[in-house]
Amino acid sequence: MKGLAFDEIEVGQKASFSKTVTEADIVLFAGVTGDLNPVHINEAWASTSFFKGRIAHGMLSAGFISSILGTQLPGPGTIYLKQTLEFTAPVRIGDTITAEVEVVEKMEKNRLRLKTTCTNQDGKDVTHGEALVMPPKG
Amino acid sequence: MKGLAFDEIEVGQKASFSKTVTEADIVLFAGVTGDLNPVHINEAWASTSFFKGRIAHGMLSAGFISSILGTQLPGPGTIYLKQTLEFTAPVRIGDTITAEVEVVEKMEKNRLRLKTTCTNQDGKDVTHGEALVMPPKG
Amino acid sequence: MKGLAFDEIEVGQKASFSKTVTEADIVLFAGVTGDLNPVHINEAWASTSFFKGRIAHGMLSAGFISSILGTQLPGPGTIYLKQTLEFTAPVRIGDTITAEVEVVEKMEKNRLRLKTTCTNQDGKDVTHGEALVMPPKG
Amino acid sequence: MKGLAFDEIEVGQKASFSKTVTEADIVLFAGVTGDLNPVHINEAWASTSFFKGRIAHGMLSAGFISSILGTQLPGPGTIYLKQTLEFTAPVRIGDTITAEVEVVEKMEKNRLRLKTTCTNQDGKDVTHGEALVMPPKG
Repeated sequence: MKGLAFDEIEVGQKASFSKTVTEADIVLFAGVTGDLNPVHINEAWASTSFFKGRIAHGMLSAGFISSILGTQLPGPGTIYLKQTLEFTAPVRIGDTITAEVEVVEKMEKNRLRLKTTCTNQDGKDVTHGEALVMPPKG
Repeated sequence: MKGLAFDEIEVGQKASFSKTVTEADIVLFAGVTGDLNPVHINEAWASTSFFKGRIAHGMLSAGFISSILGTQLPGPGTIYLKQTLEFTAPVRIGDTITAEVEVVEKMEKNRLRLKTTCTNQDGKDVTHGEALVMPPKG
Repeated sequence: MKGLAFDEIEVGQKASFSKTVTEADIVLFAGVTGDLNPVHINEAWASTSFFKGRIAHGMLSAGFISSILGTQLPGPGTIYLKQTLEFTAPVRIGDTITAEVEVVEKMEKNRLRLKTTCTNQDGKDVTHGEALVMPPKG
Repeated sequence: MKGLAFDEIEVGQKASFSKTVTEADIVLFAGVTGDLNPVHINEAWASTSFFKGRIAHGMLSAGFISSILGTQLPGPGTIYLKQTLEFTAPVRIGDTITAEVEVVEKMEKNRLRLKTTCTNQDGKDVTHGEALVMPPKG
């Protein structure tokens, strides 16, 4: 149960994770984060808002990225240093989100820079950014 | 139930949210994000890792920031555009995290830049970064 | 709060429990067991699979059987020794499952053998098998 | 996102999954299965029972086995046919359970028989049995 070490990782390497975002996910995410923004938990309010209905928390999609980094690439033992996130489109109940990470640079001091994206079932970008991590020691 | 508009917000304005991170929060966060990294869900493994025990998901703290932006400052109707996150120290079960956002710049096109920080009960920084949001129309 | 003792139980005795399986049940079951099989959590993937859509975890239905054994027949104090399970048909979101246990044999050493079945709202068998338990001391 | 086909699997092949069982897992498992047996949810009652304290649901450990079958070996697309379970020792809050499956026989009609075991952090067997599955078509 140890992830890939720096020397076992190449630029261009990818991994992904997909999940359908359900109403239950949003309820639970709201509960643990305290993010009770009505756009997430109040359909009556959300339906009259800019988004015309409830949307998922952006940080839920960010969590899918974290899931890949910590379980697949590099995997267990990785230290998560930085993440940038640009939220580009709403995620709605029933959307199936595919998060993907791709190694874009092997840096000094055992650091990796990765491109991170989340797209929906239509291939539309909903979140993208970059991660900086230290993979586990070899 | 509408947040503050651009004209109602000043540079230097702050808001905060605090929550104790429990084992249940981590279990639920792991479940909704699929982030089953053993450092979060396996004490036997985590106790022998760099962190010497289970730690919370970094994106849980990020969720506390999102909570402030969407419920307090600016509040409901805010559109979340970008977030940067630097993870500086681990969050452990039982830690009480205080997230804080502070408006640092009022930009063109109805945009606000905010400094975002999460500190633990000892005042130690665990996560910091910046958010870019559009407050609701006035 | 004590279940039935060996002497209070007869062959042929039955008990049942029914529950509608919701998307939230599946989300939570996936979270606590770590069973992120896409057939349970990814509608886009599941809809193209053999099952043509998401299905519940088989062990969720098995949990309904355990529920009867531990709360009704024999009830609190029962020691669960063995269970066999045959998964015969998928359980879908919205299905109402009725689990039933029936005592089929009173054995030596305070042991009971029970037939265990789960059927859906159309009476279709979805899971069946046998349980071996020790009822509480009288 | 497809598991291993029959031809890609060999007798002796193994996979495992580990998780610390928390109070939250038991609460959530009780909620979704309706298994409110006091030995799981009532510490006052459980502390005077045979087990001298709350224990986890046996089917939670069974869920860890299902997790391996559906995500690792054989993985996505597997059809779960049968499972036998023998509950040999209690699982307590804070125990870290390692589930393991091992292919023991490649049978006719695309079927695999697997040995399934769950042990705690001290290497003690808590549940064992056998699974019968059909791996995904190649």
